[in-house]
Amino acid sequence: MERVENLELQVQELLKLLEAAKQLNSNLEIEEVFQNILLQMVTMIGAEAGTLWVLEQDGEEIKVVAAYGESADKIVNIRLKKDEGIAGKVIMSGEPVLIRNVKEHPDWSNRVDESSGFVTKSMITVPLTVKGKVLGSLQLLNKKQCDYFNEADVSLAVALASQSAMALHNSQMYDELQQMFLSMIRTLAKVLDARDPYTAGHSERVANYSVWIAGKLGMEADRKKELYKAALLHDVGKIGIPDDILRKPDRLTAEEYEAIKLHTVVGADILSNMEPKKAVADVIQTARSHHERMDGSGYPDGLKGEEISQFARIVGVADTFDAMTTARSYSKGLPYRDAAAELIRCKETLFDSAIVDAFTTVLAESDYDLTQYEADHKKEYRL
Amino acid sequence: MERVENLELQVQELLKLLEAAKQLNSNLEIEEVFQNILLQMVTMIGAEAGTLWVLEQDGEEIKVVAAYGESADKIVNIRLKKDEGIAGKVIMSGEPVLIRNVKEHPDWSNRVDESSGFVTKSMITVPLTVKGKVLGSLQLLNKKQCDYFNEADVSLAVALASQSAMALHNSQMYDELQQMFLSMIRTLAKVLDARDPYTAGHSERVANYSVWIAGKLGMEADRKKELYKAALLHDVGKIGIPDDILRKPDRLTAEEYEAIKLHTVVGADILSNMEPKKAVADVIQTARSHHERMDGSGYPDGLKGEEISQFARIVGVADTFDAMTTARSYSKGLPYRDAAAELIRCKETLFDSAIVDAFTTVLAESDYDLTQYEADHKKEYRL
Repeated sequence: MERVENLELQVQELLKLLEAAKQLNSNLEIEEVFQNILLQMVTMIGAEAGTLWVLEQDGEEIKVVAAYGESADKIVNIRLKKDEGIAGKVIMSGEPVLIRNVKEHPDWSNRVDESSGFVTKSMITVPLTVKGKVLGSLQLLNKKQCDYFNEADVSLAVALASQSAMALHNSQMYDELQQMFLSMIRTLAKVLDARDPYTAGHSERVANYSVWIAGKLGMEADRKKELYKAALLHDVGKIGIPDDILRKPDRLTAEEYEAIKLHTVVGADILSNMEPKKAVADVIQTARSHHERMDGSGYPDGLKGEEISQFARIVGVADTFDAMTTARSYSKGLPYRDAAAELIRCKETLFDSAIVDAFTTVLAESDYDLTQYEADHKKEYRL
Repeated sequence: MERVENLELQVQELLKLLEAAKQLNSNLEIEEVFQNILLQMVTMIGAEAGTLWVLEQDGEEIKVVAAYGESADKIVNIRLKKDEGIAGKVIMSGEPVLIRNVKEHPDWSNRVDESSGFVTKSMITVPLTVKGKVLGSLQLLNKKQCDYFNEADVSLAVALASQSAMALHNSQMYDELQQMFLSMIRTLAKVLDARDPYTAGHSERVANYSVWIAGKLGMEADRKKELYKAALLHDVGKIGIPDDILRKPDRLTAEEYEAIKLHTVVGADILSNMEPKKAVADVIQTARSHHERMDGSGYPDGLKGEEISQFARIVGVADTFDAMTTARSYSKGLPYRDAAAELIRCKETLFDSAIVDAFTTVLAESDYDLTQYEADHKKEYRL
């Protein structure tokens, strides 16, 4: 009966912890997946502490990606060689290990205990295996209310580990795919910009400016990532403009200008081929509307004010700033301060005031050194 | 004590089922994730049967995506309105429901029992919630070795459901992202092809031909998906070729031909900007080597035989076939039969014999009607 009551206690405790985790209301990032996997395992088995180890991409080192218990914060990000300690051994062999008393075990490495101050007595380590490949291992330390773990605990841990491994695998795959997708978009934008010698790097800069603005506006991390993608793709419609217009060194004729204006409609059209529709709606709208202006003087639809989506209003400001500050065939490009003054002059008429204010705050804070600002803020918005 | 033994029995049973599932050695598709989620839940709670319901994208219907138990195969893909039955009620409310005896419950709908022939007596239904959003619900039917489920079973199910919900969420997100990524590549390829009026639809056709060949060669599903992407992107380097060469209606000069040949190197170069490197290695190689020929007469590296990657050899055959069979400024395009004869004539010298054989088998089987073949084989290789 004692073990049943233990299990019920553990379930209650897990429910409480999960409730607390929900309050975070954060995005389901890979770190959160790591935490949840560990949390469930630790509480269901009734351990004092636990550690989730993942094999690094190079296959040579293992790393703690989540820790639970007293000295958890000291343990996260610890790395060991893959054959050092028990976590690595389990990853290599794919077999679970029960150690009633760690002190008596030959493979025991106390490097982690030394850094954390935690005293490990008893330990279960189970592999996290998907499709025959071991992705990592889960260590459970010190059985609550008992001296040692037993074989039944190991079986339960192994059973629960299968779902953990699947969640881990999916998160890693998702992360990789997201990275690939974003780098695909960035590459595409870079290549498109390169068609016109005057716009090299344009889309990337506009994407950077846009997320900096969004940061000042307090936009959520998820939305900022969407904005980053939308901004990278805002000029994708230029792919449809012939080289001789795009690269023309002289001022454009009225007809050529009309052709250039079409890049908004063409871009939206290209992007509307993407699936799933709801996931790319913002991206499509940004490509179409980033040349709309607050007073209705923009193109292609002559939208006014809030009719223009927030993304398009932000990208519109970032795009204009980059066009003003980079050299064109017909001008050398303005200094940042002068371009900022120009944005301020046109706020309310052409641009959203709040967005101009956010951007000029960024510019002032950076002391007009955007290279440094980029270096300082890289982590905030990159996937 | 009885319940402890029950739990241990359940753990052993789950381990056996998971071992069996491993033998499938299949890809970790979303269907497998659904199955695993359900399997763990059913065995840990000790239910006779179980059903995993997911809210459809339109938010109006719910659908059984996995079922376990006696009449499982009859239940999968059943749809109900979201407010019909208990699964839907739980999805709407986000609260778990315990029904000791279904016959006495007002919300009970026996539509599912009617189609399956299963007799439901007792039932737990728990919501699968991520970030406050209910994605689906899990129903457990008839407690093994007892008449009814109790409150402790509900608590355990709720505790286990959090990880299930996370796995479900991640799989759905992964699926969506994959769909988006693929449609991005297809869109890009289509737009690039459209720059040259004679190559509209070229990349998509080459991608189709390539996976059909791969199918005949017995390539694994995962690899086929990679091949599909690589084939879509094989001509991406043409983005770097000026319009006046790309669209030239007359035969090219030697210099212009050299510029065209560069699209292999430029394509590989563009794609090598993508991350993570190991995930795109095949795609890069295909862009670079799809004009290599078995006898070393191809470009850009003059590779021979097996030095050319399998993907590049396949895409090389598909690409040549499409070039022969579509109209160009200087030719009308050959009938499929004649192009197939031409491939056969050049097998061993220019093309990999096994690949030519695979493709001519496809052509013969389709009775040279590739539109119909495409319609029949769509499901095999689309993500």
